[in-house]
Amino acid sequence: MIDLSTFEAECRRDIPLLNAMQLSLRSYDNLTLKLDAPLAPNINNKGTAFGGSIASICLFAGWAVATLGFTEHGVTNTEIVVYQSEMTFLRPARGHLDVVAHLKPSDFRECLDRLQRGSDKRLRFDVRIDLYHDDEHCATMRGIYVVWLK
Amino acid sequence: MIDLSTFEAECRRDIPLLNAMQLSLRSYDNLTLKLDAPLAPNINNKGTAFGGSIASICLFAGWAVATLGFTEHGVTNTEIVVYQSEMTFLRPARGHLDVVAHLKPSDFRECLDRLQRGSDKRLRFDVRIDLYHDDEHCATMRGIYVVWLK
Repeated sequence: MIDLSTFEAECRRDIPLLNAMQLSLRSYDNLTLKLDAPLAPNINNKGTAFGGSIASICLFAGWAVATLGFTEHGVTNTEIVVYQSEMTFLRPARGHLDVVAHLKPSDFRECLDRLQRGSDKRLRFDVRIDLYHDDEHCATMRGIYVVWLK
Repeated sequence: MIDLSTFEAECRRDIPLLNAMQLSLRSYDNLTLKLDAPLAPNINNKGTAFGGSIASICLFAGWAVATLGFTEHGVTNTEIVVYQSEMTFLRPARGHLDVVAHLKPSDFRECLDRLQRGSDKRLRFDVRIDLYHDDEHCATMRGIYVVWLK
């Protein structure tokens, strides 16, 4: 099974900005990853969350949920990179940031099958990421990532 | 005139993530802002620039060039927020990050005129941001920002 705290420690060791943002992985289940971060290290000059922190957290969340999804299904030798992202900033986030990253199960399974069959070297897949503060929906991202086997 | 080092110091004071990324403002001229950042604080687990750092730097660059553009034209009481962004990650950035944020002059002048006339309370405008390493084009962003007078 997936040890989320080990995965978080590895990510924080390798990506120093995650430490700066104090990003934590809270839970992973059924192709859905939940993360959170405090406001203080991610604040801007208006006293709300810096858009750059929001984008950074969401991009990482998409990569992380995919890495966990493939690992959960026995594929551990993936290389995953982001290719495109579209973000909408709906309203200012005025405190603690809660983030949910979700892989659509039908798309993920098709991608996993094709990867395991080896019929495609590089495959694209979508991740949806949403950011909340106190159940207020503050930002949404669609990320297109690319996966291949190392 | 615009004192870029004072502006950078204020931004770094108010947005702690800019310090974490060691982002520097290099020059501003004619609606174009150049920034840079070292790889080390922005590295990922592949030894290249973390996509989250790239997105964060680009989003800030768009906000900063607009703030400087309006200030240069005598409008200092602006509130500027990002509304949407579209990013494409073209290739990994394997070292020092050089960023160029540019406001299209004709669009900016129309936005400035309407803002000064007071005919619109909130106005949208576009910023184009490009990120390079060693003259290799690594990422491009189109940001839609919203401006109003405080």
